[in-house]
Amino acid sequence: MQVPGPSLREAASMYGTAVAVFLVILVAALQGSAPPESPFPYRIPLDPEGTLELSWNVSYVQETIHFQLLVRELKAGILIGLSDRGELENADLAVLWTDGDSAYFGDAWSDQRGQIHLDTQQDYQLLRAQRTPEGLSLLFKRPFATCDPKDYFIEDGTVHLVYGILEEPVRALEAINISGLQTGLQRVQLLKPNVSIPALPADLRTMEIRAPGILIPGQETTYWCYITELPEGFPRHHIVMYEPIVTAGNEALVHHMEVFQCAAAFESFPAFSGPCDSKMKPERLNYCRHVLAAWALGAKAFYYPEEAGLAFGGPGSSRFLRLEVHYHNPLLIKGRRDSSGIRLYYTATLRRFDAGIMELGLVYTPVMAIPPQEAAFVLTGYCTDKCTQLALPPSGIHIFASQLHTHLTGRKVVTVLARGGREKEVVNRDDHYSPHFQEIRMLKKVVSVLPGDTLITSCTYNTGDRKLATVGGFGILEEMCVNYVHYYPRTQLELCKSAVDPGFLQKYFHLVNRFNSEEVCTCPRTSVPEQFASVPWNSFNRQVLRALYGFAPIAMHCNKSSAVRFQGEWNLQPLPEITSRLEEPAPHCPPGRAQSPAGPTVVSIGGGEG
Amino acid sequence: MQVPGPSLREAASMYGTAVAVFLVILVAALQGSAPPESPFPYRIPLDPEGTLELSWNVSYVQETIHFQLLVRELKAGILIGLSDRGELENADLAVLWTDGDSAYFGDAWSDQRGQIHLDTQQDYQLLRAQRTPEGLSLLFKRPFATCDPKDYFIEDGTVHLVYGILEEPVRALEAINISGLQTGLQRVQLLKPNVSIPALPADLRTMEIRAPGILIPGQETTYWCYITELPEGFPRHHIVMYEPIVTAGNEALVHHMEVFQCAAAFESFPAFSGPCDSKMKPERLNYCRHVLAAWALGAKAFYYPEEAGLAFGGPGSSRFLRLEVHYHNPLLIKGRRDSSGIRLYYTATLRRFDAGIMELGLVYTPVMAIPPQEAAFVLTGYCTDKCTQLALPPSGIHIFASQLHTHLTGRKVVTVLARGGREKEVVNRDDHYSPHFQEIRMLKKVVSVLPGDTLITSCTYNTGDRKLATVGGFGILEEMCVNYVHYYPRTQLELCKSAVDPGFLQKYFHLVNRFNSEEVCTCPRTSVPEQFASVPWNSFNRQVLRALYGFAPIAMHCNKSSAVRFQGEWNLQPLPEITSRLEEPAPHCPPGRAQSPAGPTVVSIGGGEG
Repeated sequence: MQVPGPSLREAASMYGTAVAVFLVILVAALQGSAPPESPFPYRIPLDPEGTLELSWNVSYVQETIHFQLLVRELKAGILIGLSDRGELENADLAVLWTDGDSAYFGDAWSDQRGQIHLDTQQDYQLLRAQRTPEGLSLLFKRPFATCDPKDYFIEDGTVHLVYGILEEPVRALEAINISGLQTGLQRVQLLKPNVSIPALPADLRTMEIRAPGILIPGQETTYWCYITELPEGFPRHHIVMYEPIVTAGNEALVHHMEVFQCAAAFESFPAFSGPCDSKMKPERLNYCRHVLAAWALGAKAFYYPEEAGLAFGGPGSSRFLRLEVHYHNPLLIKGRRDSSGIRLYYTATLRRFDAGIMELGLVYTPVMAIPPQEAAFVLTGYCTDKCTQLALPPSGIHIFASQLHTHLTGRKVVTVLARGGREKEVVNRDDHYSPHFQEIRMLKKVVSVLPGDTLITSCTYNTGDRKLATVGGFGILEEMCVNYVHYYPRTQLELCKSAVDPGFLQKYFHLVNRFNSEEVCTCPRTSVPEQFASVPWNSFNRQVLRALYGFAPIAMHCNKSSAVRFQGEWNLQPLPEITSRLEEPAPHCPPGRAQSPAGPTVVSIGGGEG
Repeated sequence: MQVPGPSLREAASMYGTAVAVFLVILVAALQGSAPPESPFPYRIPLDPEGTLELSWNVSYVQETIHFQLLVRELKAGILIGLSDRGELENADLAVLWTDGDSAYFGDAWSDQRGQIHLDTQQDYQLLRAQRTPEGLSLLFKRPFATCDPKDYFIEDGTVHLVYGILEEPVRALEAINISGLQTGLQRVQLLKPNVSIPALPADLRTMEIRAPGILIPGQETTYWCYITELPEGFPRHHIVMYEPIVTAGNEALVHHMEVFQCAAAFESFPAFSGPCDSKMKPERLNYCRHVLAAWALGAKAFYYPEEAGLAFGGPGSSRFLRLEVHYHNPLLIKGRRDSSGIRLYYTATLRRFDAGIMELGLVYTPVMAIPPQEAAFVLTGYCTDKCTQLALPPSGIHIFASQLHTHLTGRKVVTVLARGGREKEVVNRDDHYSPHFQEIRMLKKVVSVLPGDTLITSCTYNTGDRKLATVGGFGILEEMCVNYVHYYPRTQLELCKSAVDPGFLQKYFHLVNRFNSEEVCTCPRTSVPEQFASVPWNSFNRQVLRALYGFAPIAMHCNKSSAVRFQGEWNLQPLPEITSRLEEPAPHCPPGRAQSPAGPTVVSIGGGEG
């Protein structure tokens, strides 16, 4: 229904609250498309105050996502979008805005300077705009891939959502520069796997591992550590699922949570509840590192496959558990109490298989290093055919979940399975990986690994802000490249990782020395990090290091635990030869692109429902 | 006008000649578009018999080419198209075909197996199909770029045209496999420069340098050498233009022609007319290498800029000229006489400037080498700021034409001008370069080079069919990377080329030795080609060689003639540092793509005009 102009003009001229009112009474009409059949199983707060809430569902058949954005306090408009790593420039945006007269919804993009432009091809399609008691609800959809070069390609793994709030009407979309707005970023896995929920046992019991009503510190980042314990004599059980418990009102503050089991080697662990970096934290808590459960923002309940469960309790395992909660509090909110945690669902009727966790990727050693000022340097760790041949059962193992891990410079992680020198399938890939968002992810498809298979884990790093080489290691300024894969049946193989042969690295330092006038790595043997620190990073030394890592033999860690190797010769192993590679993921352009409207949709203004 | 079906069906069932007749009576109708305003200045025979002839013009404003294809003996249809290097697979095709009932014209492509498919986007647009006394004339147009991923992007430089002849009707386009047809390839520069013809002097005279009515040998490839001479006492003149003279009927046989001036150092040269590789050819003719004029198939007249001319005649230059004609005779036609050659237009009124030719690129030395089995290995030669600073006049030189040169593995050549470490403009680029098609090309835009500028010439090689490294040198199985630039005013600088410092190459061989178990390049010093021949070409040695060429200092040849250097230190020069690169050429997608028809055009059959 079209409302006469003049009265609207008056309202618009009052700006501020007046415009807010004007837009809040904005209601549906729009392009005949039916609302999506299913509701929205996934939901995430976008801003730290939780005034913006995004829900969505995924259709893998139509390769489309339906989004429902709830805007609790609408002003003159809202931008929401996607960008490579959460930057506001070069972002792919859906924009709802008003020029004071009318309201519009359009598919837009921001350029390098943050200036907004309308897309020539409109791929965000508004289906409904509705006033609800909670706020304005926008329903819109978008295909995974649009093939508009200005659009983001929605892939598996992490997606960086950005948003911005328009405070005042704008005469045109092009008048908006995103740098002048209140904006923010949220990371989420949009393409959740479509796995069916396994049957749960009749004797299912639950146990809540929760923070004890703590006061969230008024600082941006807190990792809270809390030690709890299983009942004495708690026998062996299988965890078959777990889910987050987030204290109401704190949804936008609780960023991720993990439950660790402590080492069985110690009889007991001291009680503790406080920041993990506190000086008061007992040293011994560093031995509570065996992951039982992990959750991150946006994730749902985690289910073990029907034939497997994660063993805990019983002899040979510690009764002590450590809960770690990461609070992300950029508004420095004070006085908020929290009892968030994880609810474990477990059974005494042990399932057929124990689940296990195996560590793939690179050994934590400085011989694997990234030169400074690299935009995308790749390091690769191998789990060789020789190791899987020795350690895996004849029928193989089945990987059903994966948690990727790097330190601060990690940008992409991928693990690929190869058989007979040919890449066969991707175990897990995240081309928009962020070290700030490390969740355990169910795989869309269980990957079976047979004896003799090779697992290749590659991490891409950006060291644009580093002055010296970044070497491998445990330190936060050092790097890791790890994929913790969750699989069954559990085997003795806990760790299958590699690093370049140290002798070949010394040959590299020698040649750096020969090719450069400056003296590097001379006689009194210095440490590898010192050697790397003294390399002059010209194009030659960079490229030769890259060539070395792609050629030199490797040292394998094919270990039962972090210290115990399987028997065999693991040094100077040949680099696995891959004769056939998988193709990179590429967008499928949807057919019938011509159907999308050529310009923004005018959002008709009618009477409110609520 | 639609002709009733049954009678056509009968005709079609007779196939062969019947179908040929049926299609020959096919005449215009088609999509209202007007014919192009200008005629077709460019023309080339496609097949060795000359039954297919392609004419075209270029609109740089519309970024479109209009083609006119003359088919002298039409059978059931014709394919013509474009592909990266003249292969019939993965080609972009315009197809005229009949199913026996109707005739169709469509934009199609061939897959890796030569199977033909209709494009989803129709970018070849048929404007007219007309019977003429000479044969069927098809008029169609295509934009340079279509942004259909199956289409070829028409760029500057060499274009590989392919054609195929349909002998019989096909039930559908998809039933055609190009491997079953009579097919062929022709190389041509489609995007001829749009340069205006300079004013010619009043006292213009002509001289024809022509083969003396020779009998073209009945073999595929002949380079014919003919020695002629200028009149005694012929004074200094300026050549201001030249054009080809091709004996009528031999248009499809004469592939290219060059006129060389012999070296002034010799008093006289023996007469000769015969194949250049004949054992009877006098040794001394190898000293006739100074290019006066060059023409290749499809090229038009060559004009010098109004203020410059190429000096010939007079004291200090040889009276002796060598004409070289390349006959390409794949049908082994015998008994054909030929008097083709080049007509020089010259003036005694010397123009303001002498034109000169300068050689850019790589020195002919084995230190620049390409590993075997490389699909696209790049070697780069430099003309450094130090050399141009020393050798060029303060007001610089003006490059107006260029001839690119490599041996058999060359696939791309480009020369870029850099100033202050930043790439400024392309002198000449051919991304579809073929060593079988080396014509002198007028530049679209004259490029001015100032003292202190750097000229960077890069060649891309494909050594997929080689077992050993390909080293630089004069031999046909060795490689070159040269751009002969034509410029004015003439300077003393004849040669401005580089090669990697030989000492750094020895460091490379040393490190190859250290990193590989096999012994390479050991003590009794072997030659560089032998050293390269003994390198085991693993990924490391390949990448390090690439890194070396991108890093090591160079030896410059900044020469007045091939033997005389300008004064200065030219060894161990730093590689020019380029901080800002030009973007690669990218297609501009034409707006309004939606206008093109979605499927093939039905070619209406009416009464013939001729």
